[in-house]
Amino acid sequence: MQLSKKVALAVTFLAGLCLSGTAMAAEGDAAGELASSSNTLFILLGAVMILAMHGGFAFLEVGSVRRKNQVNALNKIICEWGFSTIVYFLIGYPLARGVSFLVPVEEMAVNHGFEYVKFFLLLGFAACIPAIISGGVAERAKFWTNSVAGGIFVGLVYPLIEGVTWGRFNNGLGGAEGWLASTFGAPFHDFAGSVVVHATGGWLALPAVMLLGARLKRYDSNSIKVSSIPFLALGSWILIVGWFGFNVMSAGELTAVSGLVAMNSLMAMVGGTIAAMAISKNDAGFVHNGALAGLVAVCAGSDLYHPVCAAVVGAFAGGIFVFMFEIETEKWKIDDVLGVWPLHGICGAWGGIAAGIFGQKALGGIGGVSFFSQLIVTALVVVFCVVASTVVYGLLKITVGIRLDHHEELRGSDLTVHMIEANPEEAM
Amino acid sequence: MQLSKKVALAVTFLAGLCLSGTAMAAEGDAAGELASSSNTLFILLGAVMILAMHGGFAFLEVGSVRRKNQVNALNKIICEWGFSTIVYFLIGYPLARGVSFLVPVEEMAVNHGFEYVKFFLLLGFAACIPAIISGGVAERAKFWTNSVAGGIFVGLVYPLIEGVTWGRFNNGLGGAEGWLASTFGAPFHDFAGSVVVHATGGWLALPAVMLLGARLKRYDSNSIKVSSIPFLALGSWILIVGWFGFNVMSAGELTAVSGLVAMNSLMAMVGGTIAAMAISKNDAGFVHNGALAGLVAVCAGSDLYHPVCAAVVGAFAGGIFVFMFEIETEKWKIDDVLGVWPLHGICGAWGGIAAGIFGQKALGGIGGVSFFSQLIVTALVVVFCVVASTVVYGLLKITVGIRLDHHEELRGSDLTVHMIEANPEEAM
Amino acid sequence: MQLSKKVALAVTFLAGLCLSGTAMAAEGDAAGELASSSNTLFILLGAVMILAMHGGFAFLEVGSVRRKNQVNALNKIICEWGFSTIVYFLIGYPLARGVSFLVPVEEMAVNHGFEYVKFFLLLGFAACIPAIISGGVAERAKFWTNSVAGGIFVGLVYPLIEGVTWGRFNNGLGGAEGWLASTFGAPFHDFAGSVVVHATGGWLALPAVMLLGARLKRYDSNSIKVSSIPFLALGSWILIVGWFGFNVMSAGELTAVSGLVAMNSLMAMVGGTIAAMAISKNDAGFVHNGALAGLVAVCAGSDLYHPVCAAVVGAFAGGIFVFMFEIETEKWKIDDVLGVWPLHGICGAWGGIAAGIFGQKALGGIGGVSFFSQLIVTALVVVFCVVASTVVYGLLKITVGIRLDHHEELRGSDLTVHMIEANPEEAM
Repeated sequence: MQLSKKVALAVTFLAGLCLSGTAMAAEGDAAGELASSSNTLFILLGAVMILAMHGGFAFLEVGSVRRKNQVNALNKIICEWGFSTIVYFLIGYPLARGVSFLVPVEEMAVNHGFEYVKFFLLLGFAACIPAIISGGVAERAKFWTNSVAGGIFVGLVYPLIEGVTWGRFNNGLGGAEGWLASTFGAPFHDFAGSVVVHATGGWLALPAVMLLGARLKRYDSNSIKVSSIPFLALGSWILIVGWFGFNVMSAGELTAVSGLVAMNSLMAMVGGTIAAMAISKNDAGFVHNGALAGLVAVCAGSDLYHPVCAAVVGAFAGGIFVFMFEIETEKWKIDDVLGVWPLHGICGAWGGIAAGIFGQKALGGIGGVSFFSQLIVTALVVVFCVVASTVVYGLLKITVGIRLDHHEELRGSDLTVHMIEANPEEAM
Repeated sequence: MQLSKKVALAVTFLAGLCLSGTAMAAEGDAAGELASSSNTLFILLGAVMILAMHGGFAFLEVGSVRRKNQVNALNKIICEWGFSTIVYFLIGYPLARGVSFLVPVEEMAVNHGFEYVKFFLLLGFAACIPAIISGGVAERAKFWTNSVAGGIFVGLVYPLIEGVTWGRFNNGLGGAEGWLASTFGAPFHDFAGSVVVHATGGWLALPAVMLLGARLKRYDSNSIKVSSIPFLALGSWILIVGWFGFNVMSAGELTAVSGLVAMNSLMAMVGGTIAAMAISKNDAGFVHNGALAGLVAVCAGSDLYHPVCAAVVGAFAGGIFVFMFEIETEKWKIDDVLGVWPLHGICGAWGGIAAGIFGQKALGGIGGVSFFSQLIVTALVVVFCVVASTVVYGLLKITVGIRLDHHEELRGSDLTVHMIEANPEEAM
Repeated sequence: MQLSKKVALAVTFLAGLCLSGTAMAAEGDAAGELASSSNTLFILLGAVMILAMHGGFAFLEVGSVRRKNQVNALNKIICEWGFSTIVYFLIGYPLARGVSFLVPVEEMAVNHGFEYVKFFLLLGFAACIPAIISGGVAERAKFWTNSVAGGIFVGLVYPLIEGVTWGRFNNGLGGAEGWLASTFGAPFHDFAGSVVVHATGGWLALPAVMLLGARLKRYDSNSIKVSSIPFLALGSWILIVGWFGFNVMSAGELTAVSGLVAMNSLMAMVGGTIAAMAISKNDAGFVHNGALAGLVAVCAGSDLYHPVCAAVVGAFAGGIFVFMFEIETEKWKIDDVLGVWPLHGICGAWGGIAAGIFGQKALGGIGGVSFFSQLIVTALVVVFCVVASTVVYGLLKITVGIRLDHHEELRGSDLTVHMIEANPEEAM
């Protein structure tokens, strides 16, 4: 073998290697683009499914109120979505996440605009707060004072809770290196918001409902009935379907997607449905809300449970909902129209605690969760929300008033606030 | 060239190769993760779309029954979804697929929990069986005995059919090396369940409908009318949209996705709509069910047809549905409330056979399908379902009874079973 | 070192390199398959979401017409979807895109059938034309003559506009090297169809509405009211949710997906909702249509705006819609039932022009857009549509007639055209 030949061989090798490297880099770029765009699509799909859930909130309320307040239910939900977007865009998201969108568009448009769809997804969670409250205060709350309260919750109260659990202040509670983690072996865990979203919404609603008082004639002999089971069920179905975006896309990025989350959501929904059916003797309202109770409860530990335990967690939630709704509205005479405190407040808190029980390895779960961390943060959120809501609604009550006057309430907010009935042609 | 230089050169090459290999491995891992997570997302989207279809089944029935049975329609669909989940989880899926979920969660959580979303998708198919039957037996079947029958079908009957066509017992029928394939040149082909799901549901429903008998006063002069075309149409629209998940995600994995399946589903839906419109003189119920008839029929061969042939297959289905519904309910006086036998039974069987005709290369299709394999398996499924349903509903009838008593039926199952009307406020 | 050793070394290197290359090629193939199938899924999801929007069009109209024309609204939308599919498949798509599907199925099934899902997506846009017009001509147009007009628009008029802006004739207008681009610095830009779809639909509707004349007794003292706010709102919600497919999947391929498009659609929807609420004093119809007005206007520049500007564009649209609807229907007495001219025609044109203003870098946008290119093409589309519609509806009017006779209109098209009421049981 001559030197020239050796060199030729070496050059050939090197050239091959270089070509291989270049091709690989190009493929790497293409793969990176695909990964990045798939990621944006993943979060977008979740955001859109949660947006759809707000339509579900609207119809759940339309069916559960009297016909004279159906228009009000619809306008509340879509308008509060609008207000929530503005407030969360300007204040809430920067507060919770440390990211402002009031910067040049090019800065945020990187990675296929991932930060934008992340905002859209997290807005969907934030906007659940007024949507949840809406169902509790229905049929007698003033549109504007209730909107103001919603704005404060979405702009300040919820972002603080979001910030210390999921966001940038999570050193002590949500974080892996905080006090809870070092004391109890694991940080607070709330995969998709049983506590952060649902308990928050439900426990913010309770003082509002109590400060408002019951609807006129609510506790006279059986004088108030829901308007439409089909619309109630429609709302429930939209919420159920959208919930799989709420839970699955809580993974935050495509490569963290977990079929287990979907499976557990399914099992909890089914557990909640069947338990509510059994306890309520097949009542339509309870059955369709029982599915939601299961879904509320499963959020926190949906990435941890064995599917059999997820069904148990959901079944408990369905039972708790029926039982506590009866206690709240009939025994305690707290007129929570859609039962948002038992549904989101109680079942959400149960979900937070359940993650600390059924998420354990000893009970077949994935583990890495602490009962006490769950209990403590859940309790803190409950207390914080009760205080915050009492202050906000209390101040609004003693200043501008939070309730429609008697005439308005009797005639219905559709005609007195929106100047139109739900079925104008029929009403002629 | 000295030895040291040669060695240096060799080391350089090797190092380069190693580096290149390492980078490639890392990229390969990332690509594998992306592929695996995208795959889980793909099947999840299908599962969620099929879950939504069950809301569609509910509203199709709500609109098609009288107002006194709307609540019952809603509760039946969501509760049977619940029962189906439990039964298919514990018995049906293990039977059809040889996979049990009663194992440690870590075993199943691999590949981004793909097996879980696969279960969710296939549950959506299985749960169609009671949802289909529900429409046929509406307004007079007992809630519990009908639920028991549904449980038997989802736990045993359907999984056997699924097992021998799509699942683990498919050596003879579905498999590429079975008797059908070796005798007729191609195995049985049912891409998305014209036969496995729809014919099964429709032919299980027929004996149930006949054993129940017609609703009271059904064949007195025109005394029964549907309650709501808007709800009927809403159900149809939800089913139509979800169907694109039903058909497209039947591919089973993302890299097997085929735009042709979507195109053919579209063309068959349109064919069914227009044919039903033309034959029924623009009747609303027929038009909205005609779209579904086209979709039922196209499932089996949606991956094979030329789009023009898919339109023909769908148009035939739309026509068959209108024609056979009239024959069944008016001439034969079989009171199949939603026409589930002509819709799912007849059009499903037609779809199975049509795949053996229009799927052939000679008719512009992709080929690889045999008319006789299609005909034989379709006939076997029909016979098996008629026998199974006759046995199950027959035994239930002579033991616990399958029909509401006269008083309950006259008053409606909403008030007698669920203790609430569809529009309670209005009923006050 | 001996020659044989050197050769051995060299062979080892080469083998290693080859293996590496082969593995890379295999990975490249897998990555290509994933990219291609993800792309098909991406467009399919958009297509399905737009299909769902047509259900939204149906319910928006069901709620906005009187009960005697609800069935007609439902049948019109689903049947025109069917007619549009046939006409666009055979004529429109080949015309606009130069692609015919009347070729062997294998030719089109490449790349996971991408061309098929692209057709499905673009059909969704095309079929908006008759769906938009349907809302304007509601309650008195003849089913068949209106369907014929829709067929002409979907087969010829819209494809010409599509062809010169997005399709194969875009050298002069849409193209980067045409007259507009060279004269004004940028070609016409309409990312998701403010002009191409919505202005086209709205301005084709206007002459139809005028040639038809107002509904009987429309301008007698307040004698016509909408039937159902809940159905109207349901339609709006379905449209809102689906719109994120309409806009985001307009990217045309997955790796061009942009979270900015979703963000801007969200902001414009919110802007439109809040503006319409403020101006209309919280009217339900205006609020739910205001969201749509914002979405119509944002399409064209949704890939260009800063989110704050998108909210402004949407807010303007919401305001314009309320204002122009009042002018059109009350002052000018043009009986545009759903307000499709102000909603799609005016807000669509505004969206086209707004892209030329707020899309500029000077106003925080991405840039690459020209005010004059936007203005000129928008004006041309408006003029072309007015002429086309006047000719088509004018000819139909003087030949076969476009309006129901007095008796049919008074009784309602449900009973006279479709032989069934919306709520047949109730009507008994």
